[in-house]
Amino acid sequence: MNTEIYQKRRDALRKSLSKENLDAILVSYASNRFYLSGFELHDGQCNESSGHLLITQTGQDYLFTDSRFYEVACTLWEKNRIVIYKSAVEDMRLFLKDTMGSKKIGIESKTVSHNFYEEISQGLNFESSDGLIEDLRIIKDASEISLIEKSAALNHTMFQWLPTILKVGTSEAQIAYGIEKYFREHGATQCSFPSIVAKNTHAARPHHEPQESALLTENCHILIDAGARLNNYCSDQTRTFWVGAKTETRFQNMLEQVQEAQKAAINLLHPGLTCREAHLAAVKSFEKHGVESAFTHSLGHGIGIDVHEEPRLSMRSERVLKAGMVVTVEPGLYYGDYGGVRWEHMVLITEDGHKVL
Amino acid sequence: MNTEIYQKRRDALRKSLSKENLDAILVSYASNRFYLSGFELHDGQCNESSGHLLITQTGQDYLFTDSRFYEVACTLWEKNRIVIYKSAVEDMRLFLKDTMGSKKIGIESKTVSHNFYEEISQGLNFESSDGLIEDLRIIKDASEISLIEKSAALNHTMFQWLPTILKVGTSEAQIAYGIEKYFREHGATQCSFPSIVAKNTHAARPHHEPQESALLTENCHILIDAGARLNNYCSDQTRTFWVGAKTETRFQNMLEQVQEAQKAAINLLHPGLTCREAHLAAVKSFEKHGVESAFTHSLGHGIGIDVHEEPRLSMRSERVLKAGMVVTVEPGLYYGDYGGVRWEHMVLITEDGHKVL
Repeated sequence: MNTEIYQKRRDALRKSLSKENLDAILVSYASNRFYLSGFELHDGQCNESSGHLLITQTGQDYLFTDSRFYEVACTLWEKNRIVIYKSAVEDMRLFLKDTMGSKKIGIESKTVSHNFYEEISQGLNFESSDGLIEDLRIIKDASEISLIEKSAALNHTMFQWLPTILKVGTSEAQIAYGIEKYFREHGATQCSFPSIVAKNTHAARPHHEPQESALLTENCHILIDAGARLNNYCSDQTRTFWVGAKTETRFQNMLEQVQEAQKAAINLLHPGLTCREAHLAAVKSFEKHGVESAFTHSLGHGIGIDVHEEPRLSMRSERVLKAGMVVTVEPGLYYGDYGGVRWEHMVLITEDGHKVL
Repeated sequence: MNTEIYQKRRDALRKSLSKENLDAILVSYASNRFYLSGFELHDGQCNESSGHLLITQTGQDYLFTDSRFYEVACTLWEKNRIVIYKSAVEDMRLFLKDTMGSKKIGIESKTVSHNFYEEISQGLNFESSDGLIEDLRIIKDASEISLIEKSAALNHTMFQWLPTILKVGTSEAQIAYGIEKYFREHGATQCSFPSIVAKNTHAARPHHEPQESALLTENCHILIDAGARLNNYCSDQTRTFWVGAKTETRFQNMLEQVQEAQKAAINLLHPGLTCREAHLAAVKSFEKHGVESAFTHSLGHGIGIDVHEEPRLSMRSERVLKAGMVVTVEPGLYYGDYGGVRWEHMVLITEDGHKVL
């Protein structure tokens, strides 16, 4: 396996450690661990870790895991720097005491449990240092952009195919399962999140679970938000369809307002723009039609190894866009008595502007 | 929706709070939250919570969530006790300061992040109190037993069907996907964990990922460990099959030793036995054949809303079995040069012994 890319990322992280005056960082968040090592993108359950990395200023890095993962670890990591634990916290703490002494170790305090922190930090010099790896991951390298493009391309072919199953009598749940099968049978390992398939008023619930009992009827609308994980990278797109011959004017107007707002925001995207400005571009577009209060969420989010990652295109983020970021742009309008329309693209920020994937 | 069962569980938890001298507990672990309220079994990602519960001695309980879940929450919880937050930690902390003052609030310190704990506990009287809800969940009530039995029954029908796809030339990955489709098309919402499908030596890796390139050949063996989530409850079973006409003696011997050890352990299961004793029953059976060192993991685990929960049938657990517990019993033998055999049943502990599901 080619592990050079991981080495390069760890070397980049060492520069961040230096800036933060940290001697090392203990990496516990699964996506960060995978980004830096290729080792196990997933944990068993949220309370079951597959392992941790210690990335050090000196370059003497370690991978901690349990015996189940030893063989896989050996394909990605120097054998004599793999530490197999039985009791994760206890064994790691003793090892860190030996190797790090009183040196300053960063820890992902937004990821590790309070209990884990309390136990592992005894007699050691830990310091909360969230976001260091996320700040690297926010700028995608060429290999990542290529993988995200492939994942987005699969999403496009799914949405081209999808209308063939949008028939009167088909349920939301059947459509969601059809999407999952399409992704899986075209190379994806899983959906990057549970698909949202929401008919009429259901589409006004941003977190609707597809129902067996909600069937497509002649002249209804259906919002579909779906993504696949292909070669470990996520895609995420939303479309809203009219089913039937007689498209309602209200739906058509909503759709046009949403697409206009999306276009306004996307056209503005370039290095130097703040996330807040991107969000406001969509809001301003909605204001022209007096419908801004029906746009109830933020404009979009970064996407990559996680389906939701930095940056957040929201009112509350002053973060500045840079080339290599990949974000979703997904304005929507929602009315409890009628339903919702959302339209979503994935967009790469480029040196001279942006590229819709 | 019938929410009486959740009320009953919360009342049971109040008794635990009283014993622990806690005025309340903040419930953040998704499975515990669901058990006590029916609200959202899943979080978006491990770092994205769908909400929290505050269960109090006085019976004035609250559900905290964000606006996406408001409608769903209203179907399960008294409207005037739903708190919608924008910034989860900040808004909850202010609310708790108002309602709880300096009263003692338990927190699931093995679940919440260190950062969450540090921020929410400012000016409040929090105390780590892990396991209180898990201690209730460990004894399944009648409705849960019925659901687990249905989930186990689906697992049985899957394994009855499975041999029809165990053909020479089929890959591990195809089999895993076939299992997932079978479960989904028979009512399951998902696999309860990624299926393990492991041919020959692959079966010696307890955490093998099914491969596209590993094809069934004439006279090979294949270990399959799979489970479904049906009506929110998990199943989990393992079988190991010989593919081809000429079953090897070595495989046959391993299979007999594993099934003998499983039988020895299951026969012993009854209220009063410790988890350690159950594990040792399998070890002793393996010792008769001098193969105990090839049994490299613990005997089993509790199963219910989580696929892995308490109790753990391991050397390190002195916990005593009680009627209403449901555990897996899954001894195995693993040889790096040959592969592995594992056989797994789900077993309910009953008043007078046990019942294999």
